Amino acid sequence: MQIAVIGAGECSDGICEAAETIGYLIAANGATLICGGLGGVMEAACRGAKEAGGMTVGIIPGLDDGNRHLDVVIRTGLGHARNVLIVQSADAVIAVGGGYGTLSEIAVALKIGKPVLGHLTWDIEDVFKCITPEEAVLTAVRAARL
Amino acid sequence: MQIAVIGAGECSDGICEAAETIGYLIAANGATLICGGLGGVMEAACRGAKEAGGMTVGIIPGLDDGNRHLDVVIRTGLGHARNVLIVQSADAVIAVGGGYGTLSEIAVALKIGKPVLGHLTWDIEDVFKCITPEEAVLTAVRAARL
Amino acid sequence: MQIAVIGAGECSDGICEAAETIGYLIAANGATLICGGLGGVMEAACRGAKEAGGMTVGIIPGLDDGNRHLDVVIRTGLGHARNVLIVQSADAVIAVGGGYGTLSEIAVALKIGKPVLGHLTWDIEDVFKCITPEEAVLTAVRAARL
Amino acid sequence: MQIAVIGAGECSDGICEAAETIGYLIAANGATLICGGLGGVMEAACRGAKEAGGMTVGIIPGLDDGNRHLDVVIRTGLGHARNVLIVQSADAVIAVGGGYGTLSEIAVALKIGKPVLGHLTWDIEDVFKCITPEEAVLTAVRAARL
Repeated sequence: MQIAVIGAGECSDGICEAAETIGYLIAANGATLICGGLGGVMEAACRGAKEAGGMTVGIIPGLDDGNRHLDVVIRTGLGHARNVLIVQSADAVIAVGGGYGTLSEIAVALKIGKPVLGHLTWDIEDVFKCITPEEAVLTAVRAARL
Repeated sequence: MQIAVIGAGECSDGICEAAETIGYLIAANGATLICGGLGGVMEAACRGAKEAGGMTVGIIPGLDDGNRHLDVVIRTGLGHARNVLIVQSADAVIAVGGGYGTLSEIAVALKIGKPVLGHLTWDIEDVFKCITPEEAVLTAVRAARL
Repeated sequence: MQIAVIGAGECSDGICEAAETIGYLIAANGATLICGGLGGVMEAACRGAKEAGGMTVGIIPGLDDGNRHLDVVIRTGLGHARNVLIVQSADAVIAVGGGYGTLSEIAVALKIGKPVLGHLTWDIEDVFKCITPEEAVLTAVRAARL
Repeated sequence: MQIAVIGAGECSDGICEAAETIGYLIAANGATLICGGLGGVMEAACRGAKEAGGMTVGIIPGLDDGNRHLDVVIRTGLGHARNVLIVQSADAVIAVGGGYGTLSEIAVALKIGKPVLGHLTWDIEDVFKCITPEEAVLTAVRAARL
């Protein structure tokens, strides 16, 4: 099972903490974490996943190594087009906070029918709002199994 | 000057008519129309641009020929990732109606700082709302010149 | 009809002159020139096509404006992955000189069954060797019509 | 360390056996196997890597699940453009047999300066020819460490 965490490359302490907890719980549930491989929400989620001994995959926009918590680095060199690969590769998508990049990922995910769980993120009709990180991961795991 | 028209592959009569007028006015202003090259809003805009003797470019997701009003066909084979190329190639973006695919294009355009004009589309803070097709094209042309 | 000219971003006087003649003849035959939009062979071919009053399309790897002879600029932001879009968009491909980038384009073109004409380029079995620019364009136009 | 194995989606018994041995040795050396995730050489290399308890990543052209030996599936939906992502993500590339798709990957790898080891593949100047699978993996691991 592959679960994506999407969010901005910079984040407030609260959002970062939520992302780290989400990453931890994804790994604790035996799923692989997929993300954009950079800083902010992405790095926090990876750090959490590694604390739980999980596997992390970064689909990065450039040709570098991404953040230091990645087990697998996909160097796409595609710039913003790499956002599409993240949601396509996921069985469920969790959005945490986020700006326009995150909105573009939410939109593509909904376009292709992936379940999208949202925690403190854009208010879009088909995004399932989750009050806590725990609820987001639990719902994502259930949705990914369907 | 390259102006993109984004919108869904199927559309109501009202949306299609607006898209056709927008395409016509883009060409009448001497700009090249960039679009996703398929049906609905994209085809209507192309039809309008060709009525005004303009140039049309379709950046299509597959490897086919797109709609029959295209002067230039870019066969990306990239699927949904081709949305990013449309907004990156445009000096200004006009969104007409639209679903989640259009939302993803609006989001990427705002992320990279392109001016986005909206006519009967998603209500997003940085999208400049235009009541008529004429206002949308006039504002897009002005923004593209900046 | 869309004909691609592929070749390196820097070239000797002889290769550049050949590319310019090829661009001129593509336009003179009423076809649209597709290329990678940068310097060297690409720029020479575009200059030739504009001398003949033709249309030029640059599918560029970055987000800039490409060379100054482009009528249409597709800002892919895809880096090397944009090579694939060039050959997919062409009805026939003419390779002039070239290094490993050109070889990758020849290989993708042959993989997807596009006719490839070669002038002073890689010696690959399915590339049709042309002694002169005139022969290359004439053969490309015929192949593109099939 | 990430090592890519590239080759055709269908292969003879001899080529498949070589690819399986190469995959096994990559995993035995503690490296992650990157490949295109489909059948033939790709599947054989993955099978080998899993026999050695290694990790396998498939960067697939479509939106499906790829072969059944993949630990991580990147659903690019990019078609042939995904070839570029495979070689960019690798620290060294091993080509086994192969047709024009493989040639395009070799060319991109050489263009961007990745070490390319070849076993029973295209005869290109900068590809380091290896007589045995063992030699190919040993040399790839050394090159990836530089």
